Amino acid sequence: MVDVQSRKDNRKIQINKVGVKGLHYPIVVLDKQNKFQHTIADISLFADLAHNLKGTHMSRFIQIFNRYSADFSMENFLEMLKKIKNTLHAQNSFGEVSFPYFIEKEAPVSKEKSKMNYVCEYIGEVREEKTLFYIGIQVPVTTVCPCSKDISARGAHNQRGIVRVKLCLDKFFWIEDIISLIEKSASSELFTLLKREDEKYITERAFDNPRFVEDLVRDVTQRIEKMGQFPWFSVEAENFESIHNHSAYAYVERGNKNYELAE
Amino acid sequence: MVDVQSRKDNRKIQINKVGVKGLHYPIVVLDKQNKFQHTIADISLFADLAHNLKGTHMSRFIQIFNRYSADFSMENFLEMLKKIKNTLHAQNSFGEVSFPYFIEKEAPVSKEKSKMNYVCEYIGEVREEKTLFYIGIQVPVTTVCPCSKDISARGAHNQRGIVRVKLCLDKFFWIEDIISLIEKSASSELFTLLKREDEKYITERAFDNPRFVEDLVRDVTQRIEKMGQFPWFSVEAENFESIHNHSAYAYVERGNKNYELAE
Amino acid sequence: MVDVQSRKDNRKIQINKVGVKGLHYPIVVLDKQNKFQHTIADISLFADLAHNLKGTHMSRFIQIFNRYSADFSMENFLEMLKKIKNTLHAQNSFGEVSFPYFIEKEAPVSKEKSKMNYVCEYIGEVREEKTLFYIGIQVPVTTVCPCSKDISARGAHNQRGIVRVKLCLDKFFWIEDIISLIEKSASSELFTLLKREDEKYITERAFDNPRFVEDLVRDVTQRIEKMGQFPWFSVEAENFESIHNHSAYAYVERGNKNYELAE
Amino acid sequence: MVDVQSRKDNRKIQINKVGVKGLHYPIVVLDKQNKFQHTIADISLFADLAHNLKGTHMSRFIQIFNRYSADFSMENFLEMLKKIKNTLHAQNSFGEVSFPYFIEKEAPVSKEKSKMNYVCEYIGEVREEKTLFYIGIQVPVTTVCPCSKDISARGAHNQRGIVRVKLCLDKFFWIEDIISLIEKSASSELFTLLKREDEKYITERAFDNPRFVEDLVRDVTQRIEKMGQFPWFSVEAENFESIHNHSAYAYVERGNKNYELAE
Repeated sequence: MVDVQSRKDNRKIQINKVGVKGLHYPIVVLDKQNKFQHTIADISLFADLAHNLKGTHMSRFIQIFNRYSADFSMENFLEMLKKIKNTLHAQNSFGEVSFPYFIEKEAPVSKEKSKMNYVCEYIGEVREEKTLFYIGIQVPVTTVCPCSKDISARGAHNQRGIVRVKLCLDKFFWIEDIISLIEKSASSELFTLLKREDEKYITERAFDNPRFVEDLVRDVTQRIEKMGQFPWFSVEAENFESIHNHSAYAYVERGNKNYELAE
Repeated sequence: MVDVQSRKDNRKIQINKVGVKGLHYPIVVLDKQNKFQHTIADISLFADLAHNLKGTHMSRFIQIFNRYSADFSMENFLEMLKKIKNTLHAQNSFGEVSFPYFIEKEAPVSKEKSKMNYVCEYIGEVREEKTLFYIGIQVPVTTVCPCSKDISARGAHNQRGIVRVKLCLDKFFWIEDIISLIEKSASSELFTLLKREDEKYITERAFDNPRFVEDLVRDVTQRIEKMGQFPWFSVEAENFESIHNHSAYAYVERGNKNYELAE
Repeated sequence: MVDVQSRKDNRKIQINKVGVKGLHYPIVVLDKQNKFQHTIADISLFADLAHNLKGTHMSRFIQIFNRYSADFSMENFLEMLKKIKNTLHAQNSFGEVSFPYFIEKEAPVSKEKSKMNYVCEYIGEVREEKTLFYIGIQVPVTTVCPCSKDISARGAHNQRGIVRVKLCLDKFFWIEDIISLIEKSASSELFTLLKREDEKYITERAFDNPRFVEDLVRDVTQRIEKMGQFPWFSVEAENFESIHNHSAYAYVERGNKNYELAE
Repeated sequence: MVDVQSRKDNRKIQINKVGVKGLHYPIVVLDKQNKFQHTIADISLFADLAHNLKGTHMSRFIQIFNRYSADFSMENFLEMLKKIKNTLHAQNSFGEVSFPYFIEKEAPVSKEKSKMNYVCEYIGEVREEKTLFYIGIQVPVTTVCPCSKDISARGAHNQRGIVRVKLCLDKFFWIEDIISLIEKSASSELFTLLKREDEKYITERAFDNPRFVEDLVRDVTQRIEKMGQFPWFSVEAENFESIHNHSAYAYVERGNKNYELAE
């Protein structure tokens, strides 16, 4: 059977990234509390393609991914990207894998347990000369508006917001620790299950800790800088404003984005 | 050229609805303030298909719709459905058309003007024996939680929510009047542009008018019933809870859903 | 602490449905091949609310759901709805739970294995007088256009489509059997991993089996009717047309929608 | 009334971007055929914030935008960003505005007219030292798989795909010309309204012009390079594969991304 993809191409155009996108697949990831966790990922996998080749072999991305899916630690993710690069005779390979990650939390007063959903992301590039690895984490929070509180005779508008961080990895860390750091920076963290005594606690805690999106990205930035272990990172906060039909948004980035991960 | 669609089918299965879905197209609708408004609709158009015909003629839906798109009043929408029914020799035709609708509003204190976005929907069925017509309207609002306010020493959690009504039409009405009715039922209405004096006003107004989703659907229900002109309607309220990562939701329906629109 | 929700309400408006919506949570479901499967659900749970009560107790929905989430069979889903109805002193309870469900499939020629993603849904109502239970299943497929094939000198446009069925349950069945029935009705089924010999097989199989959306809903309808075990069902097919930027769509429903599930 | 935003901040963290996101608003843009076109935009507007200020003044973004919305040419978009920068005493301002743009097209044989939907985007940065301006354009197309065609005895799988280009602007161009260039590079362009004679024409044209995503990005790249007027650009193609439930994807970028727009 002819191999159309391996035919010669004369357009002299090297392709930066080619591969598969929007694949949904079950994976197993590490979990600080329970050792491992079953989840479902949205996966994109790419490699570059030399200017003289007509096409890449898309099925090989899936074959290789499939082998790693049952043990998808950060380490194995990078190993998979190396395998893709070598198998496809590419110079660079790229992967973006996002998945919901659940953590069991205790309500602050009633101590009732329930699971909260955080979206995580691995973003990796294995290049000839270096390896880059970013971890994305999304944490929903509550924010009380400091301006609304100060100018109003009573009450203060508040809303659900989301904080997204992207961390350039140097050495291993637990996602749980970053989530906790972000939740401490908000007016309050969120819970799936709250009884009345918890609702009182959270309402008052949030009212006592008003935060603009500006405050939120600054507090998270300070805390991540203090950890001193990420060569580069970004922090964004988006508030689904309760008094508007659009969002308030803030973004900070710090460090050297092209930090090379040590082998 | 052969007409494959007009071939005979022997499976003896009449098809309830067949046609086009997810068409995006510019339309012009009526506007209480400005006579007409340009907007962009998401359109689905269907007819039934007799058991003995292999396929419908999809291009005819588009041709007919195209002719009506520049003057898409409620009246013309129904006329278009009749035209579809007749042209396709069908017994019934169906249409669902949703579109953003903008209204210029004044901020409550500063009187600054800006436009707010409300999603509207026409849902029509022209059947052999009767015509049904529903109007859907979505209104984003603020809700302050009555429980949180009462049990907490200070503050109260609040959030953006959305109220969706669906109204079975008997005679013409202005969408603007229903939007206003819904906004009066919430803790506060939303605005695109607010200065500080407006923010103070809204924060205090909302705090003074706490509303569960249950209160919201009840208040809107009462006000719609008072209008006495809709043979059937439904009201749903969804709060994007600021203390949870999920929604609180309530739904009420009243009346006779199969009310036949007079010609 | 005051119980605001239990206060009296004087508006005399009974609420049809009130509860939680858009909750994301890990669940475990039955699996024909592997006994059980971990997946992640999008959950809505409601009950009605008597006219004289101000609010429902949202946290109880979560508490009850949480207890059932680790063994979320069809049977336990209904048991959970009964528990919700009783705990909340409601007359009716409602649940909608959708989740991706993965099945390992073999490519038709190479026999390479990979997992395919199907979205499933449980929709249940436990009312005073009866219990209704619907299962929704979504199956992505390929469709080759019979008209395009017949009128063209070569080729035929084809595209990805999706078939959605909703089945009113009388007795237990395996989701896998319905998926297989739908895949046989399309021009071809889809796979996550295909080698070249499989691609040739599927291209030719699909070209030999052209199907309009009308054909697809009729074939699936015939096959489901032949099973003779669903009191009511609906079948819809949507083609993401490769020659248009909108969809072709067809819908059939059959039977008695209000069939009462035996205890 | 206190101005909370103008208070001093001691965290010494300058914020890269802060402002409003996800605003929906009607705008009027230039149109090659009809002089201007009404459409609805999704808008994000940001500026940086000095380390010593607590917050930005979000309402000013809306006020300034509102003034420009009725004449939203590329030129006025940049002028608006300059106005934002100056009004907010910022060093940099940023804007991302995306909107559907409709072009009336004639079917290839029947010459029937209908409108096609293309999503466009303005992305601008006005910095102290330079101005950057990118235009994004998304064009849905058909692609026939060259491998499937060559290895199969009959037929070839094909599907809807989307090509997205991002062009760094040096001098004015018509969006229509880029759309046309992209549509020529695909197996076939799409239409909203096609009669049978058109369907035959397109099926055969597409079958005679098979294109991988790799071919598509290379052909578009060649054609854009030939225009010789964009200092930097990227091209991506995504196929919603008809034989898989995921996409095939390719990406190319060329030139100097930091090209400064002349005043």
